[in-house]
Amino acid sequence: MGKLLIVGTVAFDAIETPFGKTDKILGGAATYIGLAASQFNVESAIVSIIGDDMPEEYLTLLKEKNIDLSGLEIVKGGKTFYWKGKYHNDLNTRDTLATELNVLADFNPVVPNGFKDADVVMLGNLHPSVQLSVINQLEQKPKLIVLDTMNFWMDNSLPELLEVIKHIDVITINDEEARQLTGEYSLVKAAAKIEKMGPKYVVIKKGEHGALLFHETKVFFAPALPLEEVFDPTGAGDTFAGGFSGYLAQTQNISFNNMKNAIIQGSNLASFCVEKFGTERMKKLSKEETNKRLHQFKELSQFDIELQ
Amino acid sequence: MGKLLIVGTVAFDAIETPFGKTDKILGGAATYIGLAASQFNVESAIVSIIGDDMPEEYLTLLKEKNIDLSGLEIVKGGKTFYWKGKYHNDLNTRDTLATELNVLADFNPVVPNGFKDADVVMLGNLHPSVQLSVINQLEQKPKLIVLDTMNFWMDNSLPELLEVIKHIDVITINDEEARQLTGEYSLVKAAAKIEKMGPKYVVIKKGEHGALLFHETKVFFAPALPLEEVFDPTGAGDTFAGGFSGYLAQTQNISFNNMKNAIIQGSNLASFCVEKFGTERMKKLSKEETNKRLHQFKELSQFDIELQ
Repeated sequence: MGKLLIVGTVAFDAIETPFGKTDKILGGAATYIGLAASQFNVESAIVSIIGDDMPEEYLTLLKEKNIDLSGLEIVKGGKTFYWKGKYHNDLNTRDTLATELNVLADFNPVVPNGFKDADVVMLGNLHPSVQLSVINQLEQKPKLIVLDTMNFWMDNSLPELLEVIKHIDVITINDEEARQLTGEYSLVKAAAKIEKMGPKYVVIKKGEHGALLFHETKVFFAPALPLEEVFDPTGAGDTFAGGFSGYLAQTQNISFNNMKNAIIQGSNLASFCVEKFGTERMKKLSKEETNKRLHQFKELSQFDIELQ
Repeated sequence: MGKLLIVGTVAFDAIETPFGKTDKILGGAATYIGLAASQFNVESAIVSIIGDDMPEEYLTLLKEKNIDLSGLEIVKGGKTFYWKGKYHNDLNTRDTLATELNVLADFNPVVPNGFKDADVVMLGNLHPSVQLSVINQLEQKPKLIVLDTMNFWMDNSLPELLEVIKHIDVITINDEEARQLTGEYSLVKAAAKIEKMGPKYVVIKKGEHGALLFHETKVFFAPALPLEEVFDPTGAGDTFAGGFSGYLAQTQNISFNNMKNAIIQGSNLASFCVEKFGTERMKKLSKEETNKRLHQFKELSQFDIELQ
């Protein structure tokens, strides 16, 4: 059983979509990553910080998924990171209505002793200095370090982001962010430039348009499953990252061919995540359901053309 | 050898992209469809109309590709349909700077006798009344009638468009147009609604994001090949339609599985089309080049995940 170390936010989200709205519910990158990774046979731990305002049931949920929370700092009297957002009608764009960093503003991550030898490290979207601090605490080089980030850090902490990018193996980033980071419109060219910055593998997420994996001259494309309804896109990217890193931690095989499988696993889990509000769908997701949908992914993208 | 009947414009295009501009060059839906279909072992004919201002070399090009031009009406003293457009920097959007219908305004298509028993009929983007007239001239029901159309006809000739849609087997349409035609944002729902209008197969083109094929509960996705440079998107959709219909006319197998292959063939040829201005790339495209890229498509989308 592989060890997966996860760093990222554990947060409150308040979400409004065309289909409804929620009060503060459980959210955060590490939460979604952890729930997705729990679909695989892995030992995982979350490094994060919250206030003591987080309901016990949320922590119980994570523990029941066998996620180690010894690296989750709980600040007495502190308030948990809070995000409020409203999606537009097409669900592809959203407005952030509130961001309260709260305890996240002074987060010094501490990697639990039992996970300093993790096989796979998944650095969820967070300040790049926090991501780098986690890398620096590792006792041995992991098989794979995966980093997720976003345009906010490119705008506000570019030097720190470029520094942490030097030390990772895989970056996951969306198409607009890949263009912003490199100044290249062509994703082929953007990926090649990013590979020169450090990561040997570049995953470009295109939301409803799927995801691309680049490595040297190789490229793989995973479609998103066409869905009748997308209810709430929150956490889809993190769920993708959790499926990707969880599958690689389970299989402990970081070949390009197995990374293709990991991308499909991530896409598969993300397709469930968006079906309900927040973490609702991921909380109870059976192996039977995910296996059935993997078959659909195969049907969706496999063809038998005869090549000469 | 299957017979493919093509109706569509043969036109002059003047194109400006961020990479350069052209004077009036050979263009038009039927031209691109014919050039793409000529990659396959088919007998094809174009039904269209031009003025006598079309340079002989352009007609020679089509004839050299073994395209039957007996259904191409040449109006003495008439002027050929002309389109002028300018692409924006991202190449995904464009402004139409001029549209001169000219001889196209009074086009009464005449299907050549030798093609009234065509195996596959490809109705390129054109006035739906012209598309319907071609169907009405057929002596026997073809194996497959494919229709390409665009938002212009939805805005201006919706009743005629809905009428022709009743009589076809496959529609090719882009994502925005599928949404406009049905009022459904979800492409899954849009495709289901379109199937109720007539066509049993719905192909939704998403440009750089690939193409989807829907049929009852089945769905297939073909990625677009990630390219370093897109030089000129003009004709990509028509080239896709030409590859799709040409391959089906060659193989004469209209099963869902073979349509998957046809979608890949169409995507493959479209990926060449956009590499140079206008028809430049399609004019001399070898079997060796297209086969090589089919291998890339296979690498791009095939995976070996073990399913339970």
